[in-house]
Formats: sequence, structure tokens, C-alpha cells
Amino acid sequence: TNLNNRTKLCKFCQCWLSPILSVGNLEEAAKAKEAGVDGIIIQGREAGGHVIGQEGLFPLLPRVVDLVSDSGIPVIAAGGIVDGRGYVAALALGAQGVCLGTRFVATEESFAHPIYKQKLIEVSHTDYTNVFGRARWPDAPQRVLETPFYAGSKNNLSDQETEESQPIIGHSIIHGVHKDIRRFAGTVPNATATGDIESMAMYAGQGVGLITEVIPAGDVVKRLVVEAKDVIREKLSDLK
Amino acid sequence: TNLNNRTKLCKFCQCWLSPILSVGNLEEAAKAKEAGVDGIIIQGREAGGHVIGQEGLFPLLPRVVDLVSDSGIPVIAAGGIVDGRGYVAALALGAQGVCLGTRFVATEESFAHPIYKQKLIEVSHTDYTNVFGRARWPDAPQRVLETPFYAGSKNNLSDQETEESQPIIGHSIIHGVHKDIRRFAGTVPNATATGDIESMAMYAGQGVGLITEVIPAGDVVKRLVVEAKDVIREKLSDLK
Repeated sequence: TNLNNRTKLCKFCQCWLSPILSVGNLEEAAKAKEAGVDGIIIQGREAGGHVIGQEGLFPLLPRVVDLVSDSGIPVIAAGGIVDGRGYVAALALGAQGVCLGTRFVATEESFAHPIYKQKLIEVSHTDYTNVFGRARWPDAPQRVLETPFYAGSKNNLSDQETEESQPIIGHSIIHGVHKDIRRFAGTVPNATATGDIESMAMYAGQGVGLITEVIPAGDVVKRLVVEAKDVIREKLSDLK
Repeated sequence: TNLNNRTKLCKFCQCWLSPILSVGNLEEAAKAKEAGVDGIIIQGREAGGHVIGQEGLFPLLPRVVDLVSDSGIPVIAAGGIVDGRGYVAALALGAQGVCLGTRFVATEESFAHPIYKQKLIEVSHTDYTNVFGRARWPDAPQRVLETPFYAGSKNNLSDQETEESQPIIGHSIIHGVHKDIRRFAGTVPNATATGDIESMAMYAGQGVGLITEVIPAGDVVKRLVVEAKDVIREKLSDLK
């Protein structure tokens, strides 16, 4: 991201946009602060997909909050947050807000393939791996769901092997373009995907074990607020 | 741990002891619950020393709390907790208490070597590694401080190399017994250690970057409570 030119004109609404930057460690947060971003999303190692954070949110988040406390830049916590408990924990550690990824993939409105959504309910373990997508994204491991296909493959793919030599196992339409999906590609199965869906990469954060049903996205947000209030009233009021 | 015989008579005070077990994942927590322990310490990957946890506390802790909620077994959170912010976050995620390791190593009363305490203040990064102590504890990586010695060594020790072929770099008295300390041994420098202290293993959790001074142990506890009350009043009261 070129942060020297930090604002640009939005082509749709003609407003001035300035960035909220997603970072994974204190050094990146310091650069974002220096560049004058409007907000920082700090991602812990618990997050799914391309994980930039390498530390857990417990130690990482308060350090970033301390770092930017004199700047007024809001800090948003990401990684492993699923429900009101995680929301309140993030606020306690100094975040002004939370960012939920996997929880929204497992919603009715999400464009994920139904089998992907179903696996998010069934499978509760994830792994941080470079098995998928290494041809296009070398040195960029991802956190994926420990599906039966992944569990059976993770130790059987040599370092040199990439999806380029692998068979086509399905097809998908991404941004209007038809794509072949080879085995071990990092292509996530969206609602248009066909073929061997169960062998495709399914990104998920470590919080996936707390997700037990596919619900409307609005309910995710409503529950977050209700649960947060319950947590504060029931677990924390006595300490005040 | 043999949990079939879960209680034993304390030889000092003649009371019956029953165990509080330290576990690192949901499967171990389930076994501890089944065995009828009196408490579970759940350790996140953020912890220092021999790390048993592999997930961050954000997703791991509430799952363990849910698992044992029908049993009345208290859950204590460990790993990366340093101050009142982490304390409140753990309570929000469902813990009944917290367990602090590295924070107490950096106290006046701790038996750590003064140089070890000083490094805990100076160095804010840790790594999860098997560089130290692999002769005695194969397949048991530890989280250590990224001291200059560690940073310079971590990629220069072959998988086959252990401390057995390394020079003696110091001495220590452990449980009343004089010990030689070889380079790359997992022996932590206690207050009796002599020699090249800076090349010895210094265990630390990811929260070490939040530790900025060596203080009395009692002050750690007092501050924890004061900070927790402040966090609840200042950050969370509005949401109730």
C-alpha cells in the first residue's frame, strides 16, 4: 500500500477515502501510525486466510493500543473473534471494535459454497499451512480448515510440488470470469464452484470451533451485542 | 499424570490434594474433566517455556469453558496475560482466574538471574523453537526470548546437533546440585548461574513486550486488580 498518498477520491460517491490498514505486528502498526491512517486492524495469528499476524491477540492487541494511544487512531481487533465473549475481551484489551471473518462466511448471505459452510460447522480444527496456493503465493501460508482432504494431504505434498502439475478438479466464476480450479490451488469454493468442492481450500480462523450454525448475518451482529452485554453484566460487574 | 487416583495426602499438612491440571487443547481438557480434576489451567500458544497450547486464548478458552460448564470445574487462563487488560479479557472469555508466568519471572523476588530479568525488560520478541534442550526434550519446543544469542543461533544449528557436543558455558546450582551448563542446553539461568549467562535459554511468553520494569511480586497482583477495575469502568461500563 502506498501510504504517502493516503487519500484518494472514491469514484462512486466522490468522497475522500483514507485508509484503515490491516497489520500483523507492532512494526507494521508503527508504520501505519506514521503514515497517518484513519484506523488500524490488528490481526492475531488466530485469523483465517492469509494470516499476517504471528502473535496471539492477547499480547499483541494491547501493545498496538499503547503504541497509538497518543494519536487517536482507533484499533480494531481481528482473528479468532466469533461471539460476544471475544468482542468484550477485545474491548478489554483496548480495541475500539472487532472484525469478524469466518463467522460471516458461515452466514446465509455469504457467497461461500454450501459445502464450505457445512464444513465450517462440522470441522473445528484449523492449520496454518502452505499446502494450498503456493504456486501463486509462495511464502504466504494460510490458515485453512482441517477438512478430511486437507488432513490427508498436508504431509504428502513435497515442497517442490505445486498446483501447476495437478489435475483440474473443478470450475468457478470469479469476478465474472470462468476459472479452472486445480488441486491444491488456493481457490476458495464460492457459490458458483462445481466439481470436487471438498478438495478445495477452505479458509477459516481458529475460532471456527465456536461456530455451530449458519445464521443470517444480521443475527451475528445482534447476538454479538446481546452477548456482550450479558458478559459484562454477569462476569464483570462484581469486579467494579 | 495418573488421574485414576486423583487425590493424595499432602506429606506436609496432611490435607487431601486433588489436581488442577494444565492442558493445551480441547481434547486434553475433555480428559481432565472426565477424570474429575478440581480445576483446569488452559494454556494458549502465547505462553512461555514448554508450550503445550497450540491455539490462541481467544478461540481456545471459551471452547474449554463451554465444555466444562456443566461440571462446575473452574477454568484458569494462561499464556500472554500480563496486566489488568489481559485479566479482564480472560474473564470475559469465561475464565474464573488467570495464571501469570513471565510477569512473575520479572519480579524482585524471582530466582531468575539478574541478566535474565534485564533481558525480559529489554527484549520484546519471543520465538517458539527447539534450539534449546533438544537432547533431553526432543519434540518439545519452547518459547524463548529473542536474545541476541538466540537470534544469531536459531538458523545455524543443524537438526542433528544437540548440546551434548557443545562446550560448557557455565554452571548452576539446581535443587542443591551443581550442574554444568552446555551451550544450547535448556537450562534457564537462575540466580546461582555463572558463566556466559547471555547464551543460556531464557523462557518468556509473548506478553513479554508488555513488561517494562522489574517490580515486587505483590505489586504485580495489586496492579492487576486496580487495572482490571479501571478497564471495566472505563472501557466496558457504557455497553451494559
